[in-house]
Amino acid sequence: MVWAPAGLGEIGAGDDLGSLVVDLLRQDAHGVLDGDVLVLTSKVVSKAEGRQVHAEDREQTITDETVRVVATRRHARGVTRIVENRLGLVMAAAGVDGSNTPEGVVLALPVDPDASARALRAAVQRAFGVQIGVLVSDTAGRAWREGVTDLAIGAAGIVVLDDLRGSRDASGRLLEATVVAVADELAATAELVKGKAAGRPLAVVRGAGRYVTAQDGPGARAMVRASDEDMFRLGSAEAYAEGWAAGRRAAGEG
Amino acid sequence: MVWAPAGLGEIGAGDDLGSLVVDLLRQDAHGVLDGDVLVLTSKVVSKAEGRQVHAEDREQTITDETVRVVATRRHARGVTRIVENRLGLVMAAAGVDGSNTPEGVVLALPVDPDASARALRAAVQRAFGVQIGVLVSDTAGRAWREGVTDLAIGAAGIVVLDDLRGSRDASGRLLEATVVAVADELAATAELVKGKAAGRPLAVVRGAGRYVTAQDGPGARAMVRASDEDMFRLGSAEAYAEGWAAGRRAAGEG
Repeated sequence: MVWAPAGLGEIGAGDDLGSLVVDLLRQDAHGVLDGDVLVLTSKVVSKAEGRQVHAEDREQTITDETVRVVATRRHARGVTRIVENRLGLVMAAAGVDGSNTPEGVVLALPVDPDASARALRAAVQRAFGVQIGVLVSDTAGRAWREGVTDLAIGAAGIVVLDDLRGSRDASGRLLEATVVAVADELAATAELVKGKAAGRPLAVVRGAGRYVTAQDGPGARAMVRASDEDMFRLGSAEAYAEGWAAGRRAAGEG
Repeated sequence: MVWAPAGLGEIGAGDDLGSLVVDLLRQDAHGVLDGDVLVLTSKVVSKAEGRQVHAEDREQTITDETVRVVATRRHARGVTRIVENRLGLVMAAAGVDGSNTPEGVVLALPVDPDASARALRAAVQRAFGVQIGVLVSDTAGRAWREGVTDLAIGAAGIVVLDDLRGSRDASGRLLEATVVAVADELAATAELVKGKAAGRPLAVVRGAGRYVTAQDGPGARAMVRASDEDMFRLGSAEAYAEGWAAGRRAAGEG
């Protein structure tokens, strides 16, 4: 069962998100049970943390959040930078976004979404006396496919990657190369009930308790592929241009 | 609500998947309702279609399924080819896979997963007198992130991409660049209940009826980004190498 309780209201800088979520869940007819997974949209975490930025400072904020430019694309409205941000996430505009914010304001991603997930988990577990998992989700585009999906960018108390290597399939054969990105699949599930425009930034997933752990665990940071192991660490055009320059230099030296 | 009915049994070449799924759903206590979405693992579709290949013909099958090599990676067990296959999907080994198959057998992807989805939809709608959506799912790795997730590679009667551009967020601001890959999020949701090893290749998602359409629609093929619009159409190393060769030639001509 997956649902999105209504009524969290607009979040502002300095709000105690833990208390607000606890209050929301207290009013919810489904309650909170052991093994539930809460999925909170990163946008409300950013708002509570005061990550609001004037829209005119958007480009500078993207630059500040960027560790490495992966690709750039020119289009009618300007240039989109796909970058690796300080959280290791490869995202357009470093995840800086203006939807669901007041006019003239954009939001940077939370400072440390794994820490935000841990704090929310602690608050909800204390209030209800249960063991739950918490994800902080954000929306991102993908290589090769149209459309965006939600990902887990923060996690606490969840098996983010379910490593099936060494287990056996229904035919008894070893599963050799299967590590399932459970936290991303849970974030995608939650997106289907939260939506983008309904003012419901929290979803509860019930029935996935087998992925909930006693410890907070490594967080969503563990889902980031190190760029030196990533076959798509640069856009094709950017990699080609780097190669072209190097090839030209090599010819000059040859 | 999402669940995976048990008892489909092993599928063989020539089996009538529509009848088998109808029989399975007839035995299921939840029944089939208007607006349900069925998500069927591609592996059972491949089996019914006779897409079994001897394991020793695996490399040739990958070659046959490949339209374009995107990247290659050498590792302890050999070379993995990431390719665009004839369905437009960028996948390791073109989607050819040996898990959940008998020893010595690998499976190629279904011939036309959108057509398979349409046929299954027609069979289930006829049997139960309902309007449902059908997805055929497969598992794939991603750029930038660890772990695999399930994607929709076939679809019928589903809004695969929910285009929110032009609609307004909770603050009343226009959503400018948001097209949600609903079919992939539904496939990810289904994976969480099907699992990889439990012999439950079918999941039912109830409560997503707003995405179910009267017409079969464009299918999952619409989710494939055209390679000339894809910033990651080649692996970074492959693009660099192409650039290097071109730069060297340019220097020679200069």
